[in-house]
Amino acid sequence: AAALSTSSSTSRSQSELYSETLDTFSRRHIGPSESETMDMLATIGVKSVDECIDLAVPKSIRLDTPLSFGDPKTEHQFLKEFKTMAKMNQLKRNYIGQGYYGTIVPPVILRNVLENPGWYTAYTPYQAEIAQGRLESLLNFQTMCSDLTGMDIANASLLDEATAGAEAMAMCFNVNKKSKAPFFVANNVHEQTLEVIKTRANALGIEVIVDDPMTYDFGSNKVTGALLQYPATDGTLQDYRNVTEAIHDNGGLVACATDLLALTVLTPPGEWGADIAFGSAQRFGVPMGNGGPHAAFLTCRKKYQRSIPGRIIGVSVDSQGNPALRMALQTREQHIRREKATSNICTAQALLANIAAHYAVYHGPEGLKDIGQRVHNLTEILRQSLVQHEFDVQDGEVFDTLKINLGNSNEADAVMARATVLGMNFRRYSPESICVSLDETVELQDLLDIGHAFTGNNVFIDEADLASPAPLSETFARTSDFLTHDIFNKYHSETEMLRYLKYLEDKDVALNTSMIALGSCTMKLNATAEMIPVTWPEFGNVHPFQPAEQLSGYEAMYRELSAQLCDITGFAGMSLQPNSGAQGEFAGLMTIASYHKANGDDDRTICLIPTAAHGTNPASAQMAGMKTVIVKCDKDGNTDMDDLRAKCEKYSDKLAAFMITYPSTHGVFEEHIKDMIDLIHQHGGQVYMDGANMNAQCGITSPGAIGADVCHLNLHKTFCIPHGGGGPGMGPIGVAEHLIPYLPSHPLAGERGPSDVTGPVNATPYGSASILPISYVYISMMGAEGIKKASEMAIVNANYMRARLADHYPVLYLNDKGACAHEFILDMRPFDKVSGIAAEDVAKRLADYGFHAPTMSFPVANTLMIEPTESEPKDELDRFCDAMIQIRKEIEEIEDGLYPKDNNVLVNAPHTLTQLTNDEWDKPYSREKAGYPVDYLRIRPKKWPTVGRVDNVYGDRNLVVRRSNDDVTF
Amino acid sequence: AAALSTSSSTSRSQSELYSETLDTFSRRHIGPSESETMDMLATIGVKSVDECIDLAVPKSIRLDTPLSFGDPKTEHQFLKEFKTMAKMNQLKRNYIGQGYYGTIVPPVILRNVLENPGWYTAYTPYQAEIAQGRLESLLNFQTMCSDLTGMDIANASLLDEATAGAEAMAMCFNVNKKSKAPFFVANNVHEQTLEVIKTRANALGIEVIVDDPMTYDFGSNKVTGALLQYPATDGTLQDYRNVTEAIHDNGGLVACATDLLALTVLTPPGEWGADIAFGSAQRFGVPMGNGGPHAAFLTCRKKYQRSIPGRIIGVSVDSQGNPALRMALQTREQHIRREKATSNICTAQALLANIAAHYAVYHGPEGLKDIGQRVHNLTEILRQSLVQHEFDVQDGEVFDTLKINLGNSNEADAVMARATVLGMNFRRYSPESICVSLDETVELQDLLDIGHAFTGNNVFIDEADLASPAPLSETFARTSDFLTHDIFNKYHSETEMLRYLKYLEDKDVALNTSMIALGSCTMKLNATAEMIPVTWPEFGNVHPFQPAEQLSGYEAMYRELSAQLCDITGFAGMSLQPNSGAQGEFAGLMTIASYHKANGDDDRTICLIPTAAHGTNPASAQMAGMKTVIVKCDKDGNTDMDDLRAKCEKYSDKLAAFMITYPSTHGVFEEHIKDMIDLIHQHGGQVYMDGANMNAQCGITSPGAIGADVCHLNLHKTFCIPHGGGGPGMGPIGVAEHLIPYLPSHPLAGERGPSDVTGPVNATPYGSASILPISYVYISMMGAEGIKKASEMAIVNANYMRARLADHYPVLYLNDKGACAHEFILDMRPFDKVSGIAAEDVAKRLADYGFHAPTMSFPVANTLMIEPTESEPKDELDRFCDAMIQIRKEIEEIEDGLYPKDNNVLVNAPHTLTQLTNDEWDKPYSREKAGYPVDYLRIRPKKWPTVGRVDNVYGDRNLVVRRSNDDVTF
Repeated sequence: AAALSTSSSTSRSQSELYSETLDTFSRRHIGPSESETMDMLATIGVKSVDECIDLAVPKSIRLDTPLSFGDPKTEHQFLKEFKTMAKMNQLKRNYIGQGYYGTIVPPVILRNVLENPGWYTAYTPYQAEIAQGRLESLLNFQTMCSDLTGMDIANASLLDEATAGAEAMAMCFNVNKKSKAPFFVANNVHEQTLEVIKTRANALGIEVIVDDPMTYDFGSNKVTGALLQYPATDGTLQDYRNVTEAIHDNGGLVACATDLLALTVLTPPGEWGADIAFGSAQRFGVPMGNGGPHAAFLTCRKKYQRSIPGRIIGVSVDSQGNPALRMALQTREQHIRREKATSNICTAQALLANIAAHYAVYHGPEGLKDIGQRVHNLTEILRQSLVQHEFDVQDGEVFDTLKINLGNSNEADAVMARATVLGMNFRRYSPESICVSLDETVELQDLLDIGHAFTGNNVFIDEADLASPAPLSETFARTSDFLTHDIFNKYHSETEMLRYLKYLEDKDVALNTSMIALGSCTMKLNATAEMIPVTWPEFGNVHPFQPAEQLSGYEAMYRELSAQLCDITGFAGMSLQPNSGAQGEFAGLMTIASYHKANGDDDRTICLIPTAAHGTNPASAQMAGMKTVIVKCDKDGNTDMDDLRAKCEKYSDKLAAFMITYPSTHGVFEEHIKDMIDLIHQHGGQVYMDGANMNAQCGITSPGAIGADVCHLNLHKTFCIPHGGGGPGMGPIGVAEHLIPYLPSHPLAGERGPSDVTGPVNATPYGSASILPISYVYISMMGAEGIKKASEMAIVNANYMRARLADHYPVLYLNDKGACAHEFILDMRPFDKVSGIAAEDVAKRLADYGFHAPTMSFPVANTLMIEPTESEPKDELDRFCDAMIQIRKEIEEIEDGLYPKDNNVLVNAPHTLTQLTNDEWDKPYSREKAGYPVDYLRIRPKKWPTVGRVDNVYGDRNLVVRRSNDDVTF
Repeated sequence: AAALSTSSSTSRSQSELYSETLDTFSRRHIGPSESETMDMLATIGVKSVDECIDLAVPKSIRLDTPLSFGDPKTEHQFLKEFKTMAKMNQLKRNYIGQGYYGTIVPPVILRNVLENPGWYTAYTPYQAEIAQGRLESLLNFQTMCSDLTGMDIANASLLDEATAGAEAMAMCFNVNKKSKAPFFVANNVHEQTLEVIKTRANALGIEVIVDDPMTYDFGSNKVTGALLQYPATDGTLQDYRNVTEAIHDNGGLVACATDLLALTVLTPPGEWGADIAFGSAQRFGVPMGNGGPHAAFLTCRKKYQRSIPGRIIGVSVDSQGNPALRMALQTREQHIRREKATSNICTAQALLANIAAHYAVYHGPEGLKDIGQRVHNLTEILRQSLVQHEFDVQDGEVFDTLKINLGNSNEADAVMARATVLGMNFRRYSPESICVSLDETVELQDLLDIGHAFTGNNVFIDEADLASPAPLSETFARTSDFLTHDIFNKYHSETEMLRYLKYLEDKDVALNTSMIALGSCTMKLNATAEMIPVTWPEFGNVHPFQPAEQLSGYEAMYRELSAQLCDITGFAGMSLQPNSGAQGEFAGLMTIASYHKANGDDDRTICLIPTAAHGTNPASAQMAGMKTVIVKCDKDGNTDMDDLRAKCEKYSDKLAAFMITYPSTHGVFEEHIKDMIDLIHQHGGQVYMDGANMNAQCGITSPGAIGADVCHLNLHKTFCIPHGGGGPGMGPIGVAEHLIPYLPSHPLAGERGPSDVTGPVNATPYGSASILPISYVYISMMGAEGIKKASEMAIVNANYMRARLADHYPVLYLNDKGACAHEFILDMRPFDKVSGIAAEDVAKRLADYGFHAPTMSFPVANTLMIEPTESEPKDELDRFCDAMIQIRKEIEEIEDGLYPKDNNVLVNAPHTLTQLTNDEWDKPYSREKAGYPVDYLRIRPKKWPTVGRVDNVYGDRNLVVRRSNDDVTF
């Protein structure tokens, strides 16, 4: 046989022959080279990767057979094949509406944000000092949402409009704590919103009343809250002033689903009395993407600010008294409140919220109004022309959507069919009626084509004689200003916008500058080849409710990706619906709950959760209507088997589920995992595995092999979806055979209809479908062997760092062979006594070394959890270790009394350029020591923190969460 | 009529109605808003834009009628239409070879370099202190080219392989100054290389001998130089050792056209005796792009280093004694040597050279060798299979190209036709023979398809029984190492590569950070919407010699773009061939020369050029075989009419051409332009207008309207092709009716065949065809009105800055109304006497303010020429003016004796972070004054210079132009 490669002259099979090249994707994805790996293994004290894995992973759980999903592909090969699959999706002009609209992504934002690793590889801005760029942009997002809805407070994004509706419902009950009254949902909200709310309400035992808000008697019937939609799903506008007053008079809250573009021309909910507004920011420059990802928003009145779910960005001050941004009011969140939290939202849609905010900055209030008015005018022109042609268009004012009654289903069928032929999709509202929703992409030819679909002939709108569109009535026409802040009024040329985006990007540390070794977050390479298909129009310009037969490319990808994920997890079924890890948890627990109910086990509501679990676990359990019971850890950080046994016995009849992260949140493959699972099963419970640490398992073991029943996968951790500065994510769940019938359904996905027991957990059947290609490309290019190698090298990298740092810091919780899994915990608690140094000081000091801090104080307070991932090269691991070792020396200097406890490089960290270049310098150490503590910083410059340490308490006490017209520095 | 916009309620035509939106491209392209423009006009002292234009532009040359090429389009509209045009190009697998090969652009380089404004908007690295990133990458390029060709010295790119061949020829004559012997060109070089060399030789009166180098008697026939190709155009390898020796023995030089990928496995020319090597770096990761842009390279032995054309990057030291890079040996270049220069190369292909260098860094020597070996092996497998099927494959060793003799043209036709049907293109080498060239994209299926095209059936290569490919013989097999430097051996994972690219980018100032107000360079917005089509496969994956009927999309664009450019310039014909401004000059002068010859005016060889002309003008004249005669300026900076008249009379019989820049290089619309042109015409000369300042003319006046005969357009200045850090560019020429027959032809473009008189000036018929979409998109989206508005606002912006700065600096050369055109000159000469400050100090000090310096010492020594362009927003103009005014105050402080002449913020500029954060600070001014001279730097941080002022002299005396294995800091 012929040799196509220089690297070997022995004969081999042809497939091997042709695929063999140095340019494999696995070589690009995995950081250390083979020779570097050998050096690292020597430091660990083993001779091979296998030996290292033997050290870390119990023999009892190792897979016998390799993964089977296929050979690796090169980037070039696979993208070529994948483009063919993508082209199986049919691109149409979609006028379906129902929460998803055509939009124009400004090219400058497309290229410099959505396709730019400086934005998409960033982490959630927990380290505020090196995240001021994203924080500023999210403050813009909040300002935009508050202004447009006419509310005081906005959060920095939720997952989708439907779950935002469910969050609004939960918020009403949170505010009205004592109310047992039902929740009202208007009968003209989007179907998916209603169904997701029902799923949630059902879990919590909330009664949902669905009725016409304009006729319902709110005076006689108390409600905890009412959810209205404005404009309604059929496009109509209703004046909710009296309704709102009636609900308020009877102690209820009003939450309003709405549309940001409509609000550029409509009186906002805040001005007619709503308490909460929510919706999707999709049509502000984010492609429909077959359902996501997009940023949902939620705004409310100031008095409810402590009940608002999700992240909020707020203004505070830094150590030098300058304004600085950071995440506010974190005490509300699930990682603090745990089972008392009313929401489990964690990963949100930060990247998409940023894009929507940039879109508003780019267009400005005048530009947005222009777009909104144009869409409304086009809609009115279409209405008049349809009426001229004697179509029965529903009366009443609208923004962008017309409902046309065709009289019978045959006529409606004919219109739908002609639209398809013309390359358009309309919404089939009912057998005899059709809705058409316009958007900013619509031009004259589109209007003519729509008319053509209705009339069946080419004469429709006479260009020369268009009627003047009717203006909005006083009842609905917006009179108030919005986005008056300077930031929305100056970056309207591309040059200015580009520089503003760059200015923001340059402030922040992301994976394109240095390692982000966040334990439990798996910040690995998000390869360009994985990202490229995301912005292919074949994946982006797709409406989630367009006919499935137009989307064979997506369908093929769902099928293949599901099969790959099933292979990797050892499960029989997979739901691609949950659009975040926390949503996966909720979906998984709901699946378990449905299973128990189907078995008549209605009382099984106890969920056992170890103390060290992610905060989302108890919060999700709460949302799924379960009661959390905590299981202790033993001194080695493992689940306390005695306690588990005791709890199992105590709650044997009520046991619903056991939630466990594996390897544990302590970064260890617990030996007794199979025993624990057996125990739970013996007591009739189901085992939910939190997949946060899946990156240590692939090809080595699997949730299915271990015996778990459900597991969610964080595709944004293990499977390369970038973190986006706090989202998007995807959290599909895999389940064992017996749970397949109980997976989430969706009312708008044919095969998983509304009759299913669990109901939908998200707005669309496949969650954030348009980012699934990222994981699919990753898995396909790595191949079965590569995926396994990734997990192995993640474990090798972690153990190498552990070995290098163990002499300098106490390492918490290793297994009995002294190994960690893919992450490990350094204990900072011992320092407090002598030097007063805490984990936060080390975290902030790392920024002076150019590094993002590891995960801080989770799962153990005052510790740092380090997870390097397989993608980090040895040089970077060494630089990080050098930094940590140097910091340990700096702590020693305080211990030795060289520097005072209250004035040293750690407590003063991070240091800014402004400080270091100031002529006044009153620190007891040198400028160089502060800013250039290691030599490599002179060769490869760091991202300098742009503010000093941010004061969290000040900001929470003086809550400012939107731009005011007198702030100048942001 | 209906209003689709809020901005007006009056009735208007429908086309207006539907196109009217705030979101016009012109709003995005032009910096100042309408209200800002009013403020600026007030500062200038006029009431309207028209009044400002009246001030700047003589009435006598104003256009009477508006441009006619069309209405503006929005970005969304136009990209949609343009995609349709692009899809008219048929994508094929091209195995044509002949200098252009399929290649894989590594996605990480595609997204983070080719599609990243941080790289593509940068300027040529004249300001070394804020350009160390690009300089480092170009040093990598030089190292790569030197190593692979086995030579000592490489330049940092030429325009294409054919012009590099012409440069090599010129270099042979430059080295062998006294030699009158002919130049030998092997009869197996690529046809386009030969033809371009002939054009150049013809102009210079050089005799070219074309013959078989293996049989030619170099012993008896002296040559100045010989040009060989290795591998030859038919793919064969020849051992040139004896040939080279014979040429050397007779005093000739040997230049060798070669292929970088081939040299990964072949003995390099430097090892078998060649003196010069050149070729294209295209197949190192740069798309074929229908002919360009790609970087050509030229390498040579150390002893010829001062004769090498083009830019060379060299290592020097900075003010603090640290290593620092900058452009070396600039004394060789045309802006210094002018008519004595032997090359006019100015804009090169920096961006593409960087991509090729990154490709080498990404793959490393082992990876490159792997690719080269694989291509060779596949070629040998193909050969054996063809031979097994009894095809007549030409004997002899090859790298990647096989020549197959089909016996007669019918058989060859049939193979070509079958290839087309299978989606492939081969090269028709002769009526009866075909060449097939393989590349790194080829996989097994491609080999099978190639076989299928030859055999006409599906059975070709039996996968199970492939023959082992023959290895290269000792004569040709490379044994030497290459790219042993660390930099080529560590960035092989994508994470590492990404961070390296980002590290380099972050060092440099580009348009994404701040204004680059370079007089005569027109650094305007390169909008994303203009850049997007460049990387569409329909423009990128196109071979320049594939059949024209497959490229209707390109043809349509050529047609429309030419028409637009004719409209704008007022000319009758346009050649899109020249791929840089200097090439345009050469092409234009050759067109004039051909015209004169056709008229029997063989003696017309005098070219009049004003003193202040760009250095490329006299250099191009020299290359076109003309003799430069200088015309003086008067005291106001205008052409001295008396001198012009005198020279015209003196050279009346010999006058070939007058080259003039308009508005002048002094930034003024000269009143007498029409008189000058008349004068030249009266004396039988032709007027060549240098289009460098075209950005002041569009829609206001035009070269054609003024009466010029030829003009080149710098599409990379006026028409938005980004500067790329020193290229690519495009320099089409427009001509009046009578010159159309004399435009450059091309042997491989059907309609402009080799019979034409001027011959080709570039390797391909349409130069760097794949970047033409940028200008086409720009012009189409702006529309006729927008293009005019751009020029008007360029003039307004310049006059605003002039007005603001006139109180602080002497402004040289305004017109009689006190106005400048689109740029103006600030005189720094007066400072020398009192403060010792020169233009360079001000230029370097601007970096401390975050700004790139304006053009320095051109056209007048010790001045700064400022050109803001229409894209810069008023805020940025003001920041720049504030900086200049503050710097003037700093000069005053020296004048006042506050700081010594040899130790002040200007002579010490620029200041680095290392200096400012050092505990030692011995300057007489504060750190803040050095680093934060204005407050806005604290809000919007600048790019800090990464080195202190670079010592040019030291570097030229100690020339280091490649990486050595002991350098550590680069």
